[in-house]
Amino acid sequence: MTLPRALAFDVFGTVVDWHSGIAREASTFVSTYLPAVSPAEFAMQWRRLYAPALRECIKGHGGFVVLDTLHYETLVQLLTTYGLEVDQLAPEALHTLAHAWRRLDPWPDVAEGLALLRRRFAVVTLSNANVALMIAMNRYNGLQWDALLGAEFAQTYKPDPAAYLSTARALDLKPNELCLVACHHSDLAAARDCGLMTAYVDRPMEYGGAPAPDAAQAQDWDWQADSFIDLARRLQVMST
Amino acid sequence: MTLPRALAFDVFGTVVDWHSGIAREASTFVSTYLPAVSPAEFAMQWRRLYAPALRECIKGHGGFVVLDTLHYETLVQLLTTYGLEVDQLAPEALHTLAHAWRRLDPWPDVAEGLALLRRRFAVVTLSNANVALMIAMNRYNGLQWDALLGAEFAQTYKPDPAAYLSTARALDLKPNELCLVACHHSDLAAARDCGLMTAYVDRPMEYGGAPAPDAAQAQDWDWQADSFIDLARRLQVMST
Repeated sequence: MTLPRALAFDVFGTVVDWHSGIAREASTFVSTYLPAVSPAEFAMQWRRLYAPALRECIKGHGGFVVLDTLHYETLVQLLTTYGLEVDQLAPEALHTLAHAWRRLDPWPDVAEGLALLRRRFAVVTLSNANVALMIAMNRYNGLQWDALLGAEFAQTYKPDPAAYLSTARALDLKPNELCLVACHHSDLAAARDCGLMTAYVDRPMEYGGAPAPDAAQAQDWDWQADSFIDLARRLQVMST
Repeated sequence: MTLPRALAFDVFGTVVDWHSGIAREASTFVSTYLPAVSPAEFAMQWRRLYAPALRECIKGHGGFVVLDTLHYETLVQLLTTYGLEVDQLAPEALHTLAHAWRRLDPWPDVAEGLALLRRRFAVVTLSNANVALMIAMNRYNGLQWDALLGAEFAQTYKPDPAAYLSTARALDLKPNELCLVACHHSDLAAARDCGLMTAYVDRPMEYGGAPAPDAAQAQDWDWQADSFIDLARRLQVMST
């Protein structure tokens, strides 16, 4: 197998543990306003509104809307569903909670594995996160990237092919010289349809241990690994 | 003076010494094919074709063309002016030389000063360089940024206002919360017209000691510094 010339990373789930991070960030709010709901369940319900919001934005005619804004809108939607009067809440508290997605920690293998991979490959984000969100998250958790690409750069969301193809183009690469690293089969399938190489990293705890919704879409990906350190080894990056 | 919430940097001249870098990178080619020309003069002539090429791209109707490509096109233009038969040269040698702009060193104060500034501020590029060029340059010289913004992200070149305003928008900032750091009065003037804060850093050796072409456009900028370390001090970043 030819090695890729650069690696593009999905972020939510693949790099950072959004499930426990959102539960942690939302816990005070949830215990105050929604005492019958567990923070972990709240995180799961919020994330469930994510894919439909993206699809709406891809199809919609209102122009591209950044993910920070979709997080805010889906938060309002979720709280309304829970029966809260959103107008009665402090706007500041809502904005802080919507920015919970900026304060997520990487999985334990990521800092070391990403630094290893970066020795040999340019590493960029190919995430639906907007630039301001990614900058805030990186400054929060200390991760270093060669560039932040993906949705905002492409002005559309994954799995729209333009999101993958614009990343390759910005890197001055042919699609088949770029490898997407992701824990989601659906994301990898869309990347493969665009001609990208694919590396699957298993994140069994993404949904707190529950099965992933796209488990049935598994294929034989170009590489399969159980951590970024394992991926570095498979991509022939020496650790010493 | 209120402090900015993020810093956006011009790159060629402000961060890296293109004049001596291009002279160094071109020296073998120039001594082989243009023995009557000094590499420093070659660098200066090549750079002179830069602003007209950008203006043409801003005004033109051919869509946005990345800087790597403009470097290649202006190189061919320059060599033709010197009387070389470009068709007779190895395409590989031309491409390597056009990519000389990817292999430039920072001024001596930059690595330390930028690291200091980054402790307190998000630091992004607001350069006419394309993403692939900036990634290659950063991997060559070791500089670290929070994001690569500017021309390719905006799909237009400075001094088009859209280049400055799209950078602020991507950072989720109002224009007056963002400060451009540049050694070019013309760049700072365009940023100020868009409402950005401005920090001038003096780079007297940008043209090998010759006066800068925009010296007459000097204004009282919000901050003036003679190095990135000096700028960090003026922006109240402690060095210990």
